[in-house]
Amino acid sequence: MKHDEKYMRHALQLAMRAKGKTLPNPMVGCLIVKGGTIVGEGWHKRCGGAHAEIFALRQAQDRSMGATMYVTLEPCAHQGHTPPCVDQVIASGVKRIVIAAQDPNPLVRGRSIKKLKWAGVDVVVGVLQEEAVALNRAFNKYITQKMPFVTAKIAQSLDGKVATSDGGSKWITSLESRRYARKKRDEFDAILVGVNTVLKDDPQLNPATKRKPWTKIVVDSSLRIPLKARMFRDFSCVVATTAKASKRKIALLEQKNIQVVICPERAGRVDLRWLMEFLVRQEISNILIEGGSAVIGQALALKLVDRMMVYVALKIFGDETALDAVRGLRAHNVGKTVELNDVSVMAMGRDLYIEGKVKY
Amino acid sequence: MKHDEKYMRHALQLAMRAKGKTLPNPMVGCLIVKGGTIVGEGWHKRCGGAHAEIFALRQAQDRSMGATMYVTLEPCAHQGHTPPCVDQVIASGVKRIVIAAQDPNPLVRGRSIKKLKWAGVDVVVGVLQEEAVALNRAFNKYITQKMPFVTAKIAQSLDGKVATSDGGSKWITSLESRRYARKKRDEFDAILVGVNTVLKDDPQLNPATKRKPWTKIVVDSSLRIPLKARMFRDFSCVVATTAKASKRKIALLEQKNIQVVICPERAGRVDLRWLMEFLVRQEISNILIEGGSAVIGQALALKLVDRMMVYVALKIFGDETALDAVRGLRAHNVGKTVELNDVSVMAMGRDLYIEGKVKY
Repeated sequence: MKHDEKYMRHALQLAMRAKGKTLPNPMVGCLIVKGGTIVGEGWHKRCGGAHAEIFALRQAQDRSMGATMYVTLEPCAHQGHTPPCVDQVIASGVKRIVIAAQDPNPLVRGRSIKKLKWAGVDVVVGVLQEEAVALNRAFNKYITQKMPFVTAKIAQSLDGKVATSDGGSKWITSLESRRYARKKRDEFDAILVGVNTVLKDDPQLNPATKRKPWTKIVVDSSLRIPLKARMFRDFSCVVATTAKASKRKIALLEQKNIQVVICPERAGRVDLRWLMEFLVRQEISNILIEGGSAVIGQALALKLVDRMMVYVALKIFGDETALDAVRGLRAHNVGKTVELNDVSVMAMGRDLYIEGKVKY
Repeated sequence: MKHDEKYMRHALQLAMRAKGKTLPNPMVGCLIVKGGTIVGEGWHKRCGGAHAEIFALRQAQDRSMGATMYVTLEPCAHQGHTPPCVDQVIASGVKRIVIAAQDPNPLVRGRSIKKLKWAGVDVVVGVLQEEAVALNRAFNKYITQKMPFVTAKIAQSLDGKVATSDGGSKWITSLESRRYARKKRDEFDAILVGVNTVLKDDPQLNPATKRKPWTKIVVDSSLRIPLKARMFRDFSCVVATTAKASKRKIALLEQKNIQVVICPERAGRVDLRWLMEFLVRQEISNILIEGGSAVIGQALALKLVDRMMVYVALKIFGDETALDAVRGLRAHNVGKTVELNDVSVMAMGRDLYIEGKVKY
């Protein structure tokens, strides 16, 4: 039980091996564990091929008897290209099944879980559910719109400020919020920030889990980023710039194995829509924007942001010269504001954590 | 049962008859109801005199047998200037007692409630509790600091804006929030706004309950308020201005029975601290500031605000030229911000309602 998260994370990593190859099917990973040993691994490799559970069961053979299965998505209950997995799972004799998320497909949702319970299998649902849902959220947008699923994160005061007038932002939110935000990064496969954030804080921009697919993207129209920025130390890095960038600096960055992308301009800055289209072609489909406020504002104005995660410290700056959380969106009347839907609110240390879908 | 709120509101109104006369005792009101008829009324009139319950019991005489008592504060259990009320309440034969708020005095808190229950009296606690607590909150500040208890109300977007750049603010928050905010006004005995709010929206600034002590105060350094402002139509009105005001306009306002107060200036505007000191001498001890953002900013900067009520619409303006919820407080570093303590958060229609004590 206490290793459920560890094994489920492993199953999620298996799922992601087929990134961009399963369309129009979702990515799914599966692990079979017996007596603390992994006896079977599988992931859905391509549409039309076997499902993750089947690969894992084949590898486990009769060791699946009495074992625990970890699967990132509820097994299918319907006949598709392949017969329903749930029957084979039951036949295999697994004693316990841990499922990260229910299948959102109305043909399945909950049906397999019921069937498993009837068959006497011990069923646990919801371990790393958010990560599993996030995997499919991105997948759904990818298959329907060929655009990445974009989440913007803000850490602000109650009156919507993200830095004092002299630039201070350490720390507006509490330690609990910052830790949670760090952990949340693992739901994504890339992080994107504006160059001002790098110039000001020189962040590492790393996920909480060291070994996972991860790309760091900086939006830097005039290529002002220092070659020694800490974000360049590990993982893959992309610098999105424009034709204004110095050719010499581009060459120096490329020598360091950093990908430099020359983007078209929109109002003198990197066109974020073009950049998103570019990134999705590189199979980056689940992006976290961590600021700054102008980048988030442009992304919202271009309707690129799907979800907001807002950490609100219950503090008041009361300073009209302090930095606003979102700039340049410019809702000129109350009816034109961007709204959050399907909102959840949590107490987080001394802060509030608000998450919701963006409605334009 | 269904009339409990109605009768408790009546008891609260009785309590307020002794406003400013009970120090250092709190204001308390009491009502005895039998078969739908009020058979006893009482309120604490002055320190050293009988408590509210005793006046009501005396008036009810033997009709208190089997009746319901409504009292705004838990009856006392300790010997003070007078013997403990709780024993006389029990002796009177009342069958049911409805209490708005527990006595915050540690000598009493909950003790009388227990004693009543032991004696077989049916006890209900918490009807109109917020109003009753508010009554004492103001009282507590009044006796300790000789200053009014001040609550600031804000209705803002998630990113801290209260109007678009062209002044639009209708409606940022939902109908539910606006209705609740209107109802909340009844907790106070005065409302205060800046003149810009009057010039822009021409609000009536009335409480939800038509007949209650109520004063409308407008802060108007240069006396720009129109003589026909809707706020002047009823209740008592105070215009706080400075020596810059036109003598002729002062005379016209006074002809309309509006009190004009010439206040000293602070940075060219009405000195809010001086004004609060003036108002408390007029026995206005529980004030709601409803804006604008500069008035709330000055009040916070002068540490006059005790509590904040913030309605947050889950919308993003993303416009740095839109009006900030609080201006002129100017927290120049993150450690200097004003914090909220003892916070409660409620879902309110599509908005969040956040209430907390101000910590400087």
